[in-house]
Amino acid sequence: MTQHLSQHLSEDEIIAQCFAPLAGPEGMGLRDDAAVLVPPPGHDIVMTQDALVAGVHFFPDDDPRDIARKALRVNLSDIAAKGADPLGFLLALSLPDNLSSDFVVAFAKGLGEDARSFACPLFGGDTTRTSGPLTIAITLIGAVPHGNLVARFGARAGDRLYVTGTIGDAALGLDVRAGKAAWLRKVDAFAQDFLLDRYLRPQPCLALRRAVRAEANGSMDVSDGLVGDLAKMMRVSNTTAHVTLADIPLSDAASQAIAQSPDLFERAITGGDDYEILASVPDHRAAMFEAEAKTAGVRITCIGHVLTGTEAPRFFDAEGNMREFAHGSFSHF
Amino acid sequence: MTQHLSQHLSEDEIIAQCFAPLAGPEGMGLRDDAAVLVPPPGHDIVMTQDALVAGVHFFPDDDPRDIARKALRVNLSDIAAKGADPLGFLLALSLPDNLSSDFVVAFAKGLGEDARSFACPLFGGDTTRTSGPLTIAITLIGAVPHGNLVARFGARAGDRLYVTGTIGDAALGLDVRAGKAAWLRKVDAFAQDFLLDRYLRPQPCLALRRAVRAEANGSMDVSDGLVGDLAKMMRVSNTTAHVTLADIPLSDAASQAIAQSPDLFERAITGGDDYEILASVPDHRAAMFEAEAKTAGVRITCIGHVLTGTEAPRFFDAEGNMREFAHGSFSHF
Repeated sequence: MTQHLSQHLSEDEIIAQCFAPLAGPEGMGLRDDAAVLVPPPGHDIVMTQDALVAGVHFFPDDDPRDIARKALRVNLSDIAAKGADPLGFLLALSLPDNLSSDFVVAFAKGLGEDARSFACPLFGGDTTRTSGPLTIAITLIGAVPHGNLVARFGARAGDRLYVTGTIGDAALGLDVRAGKAAWLRKVDAFAQDFLLDRYLRPQPCLALRRAVRAEANGSMDVSDGLVGDLAKMMRVSNTTAHVTLADIPLSDAASQAIAQSPDLFERAITGGDDYEILASVPDHRAAMFEAEAKTAGVRITCIGHVLTGTEAPRFFDAEGNMREFAHGSFSHF
Repeated sequence: MTQHLSQHLSEDEIIAQCFAPLAGPEGMGLRDDAAVLVPPPGHDIVMTQDALVAGVHFFPDDDPRDIARKALRVNLSDIAAKGADPLGFLLALSLPDNLSSDFVVAFAKGLGEDARSFACPLFGGDTTRTSGPLTIAITLIGAVPHGNLVARFGARAGDRLYVTGTIGDAALGLDVRAGKAAWLRKVDAFAQDFLLDRYLRPQPCLALRRAVRAEANGSMDVSDGLVGDLAKMMRVSNTTAHVTLADIPLSDAASQAIAQSPDLFERAITGGDDYEILASVPDHRAAMFEAEAKTAGVRITCIGHVLTGTEAPRFFDAEGNMREFAHGSFSHF
């Protein structure tokens, strides 16, 4: 029988049994409300915070281990895009009254696996109950050599624009997860599994962080759709961009889906949850950036370049015609 | 006419209009997902995180400025109890769909006032929508001279136990806020206003932080009731304590209420939301601690002492009889 949380585990028991084993020395075994970190000498502290809400950012019946991993990984993706090294994280967890203790145990298990594999221990946090959906706010703490943070607003005219991995898989994977889209009937099970995995279990591109901080002028993680995120990056950099649509890297699975339903291309490049890095790299460092990415085992693709101007970025198809997109950016609002 | 959030302000507009003006240089105008902090030389970074949920930690129809202030202040209280200096904070805000934009504007106004008066700017954060109640998770970042963090688990047998301010006002203030308790009819309006203010607008005891880090072996902020929090502190310190109930400092307003309804005394010392500091100070440093508190303008009161042993702390009344309390600690679960 599934036990409800309120009948079963108190806040102190949840902390002691589920989360204290995830704590690094900075978390002092979660015996204190606070955590303490000796900053790595010569480094700045980098902080980022992303919250995930059930029904908005994930399905309430997703595997609790995947929910936990995604909550941590979307933050690791932000840190990687800044060229920073993750040090640890704080977790603010708001638990619905009817959540089972099994769920919390599985959530902590998934979180612990990722905390170990990314060498990113739990520093501390807070657990509360809520009458609403499960809400997970993670604050990721990282470090970067002093002055080396790569800001979103650092792009400069003349830079090349690179993305890691492939774009749009998670946006299509969301369709797989929901299970209702007509295009699913036309795509094989292997491709569907690949897209679903990309939606449920994003892979933060930490392997590229040193290359980003060594070579990039500007960088951000692509989480709200490539088209909209690029527009944001250009706007805060006071620049614009030209992008060649045919150069945007697609997975075999996404290509298969788009071949069947060409309208999915727009979804792929405007949908969210990619968690790839968009980096703006000066022309004279491009060869070095490509070499370092290769060494790091990270696929990167040049999709366009940064230009002087404040108009919205322009996207060109294979015939050189400009394309516009109705939904520039994925917004949870 | 009140506009609903979803009809009115996008996430980007909320960030740009309401929260960017609160950002310190570390937040880079909130033009990036991440914040960057140059650690103060010779200092450790202290981190704490507390989440507040509407209907659990505050009333949904409380003044939005007060809700914001309380969310920040409960975290400042944690930092003060560690003997640390606040540097800034990250804010993860989950906004219900039906929340008015007026609410968000007022919330940001209250938060900004406190951010300025406590010299604790916004570093960054995240805004999402939720189908549930307003949820505010704040991560407070502070600093303490290297190795000087005062842990909860540092109490030692022989220490004196001190609390700041007065205990129980907020627990009684919660009754005032709810407006239904029979004892309210017996207490004057001035006392009720005082107690309500203590519930709605806690005052983090930052003025004592230097004395805490100079003199205390162990320290925590009292947020879940003095009796239960003391028990926690003794448990993690592998010690026990004797407390003289008559020495627990009460405000005139709380004394007036308790004189009318003596059963309120138990509520006062077991109820939550005090946000006072409980410090464990070695006997030979007690005079110095008292002098420093006086200089800092902070009322402190010795309520007992720490002893060897692992049993629960003992509380003695004026006749020397031991008293037990049914609700040792306030739990939101």
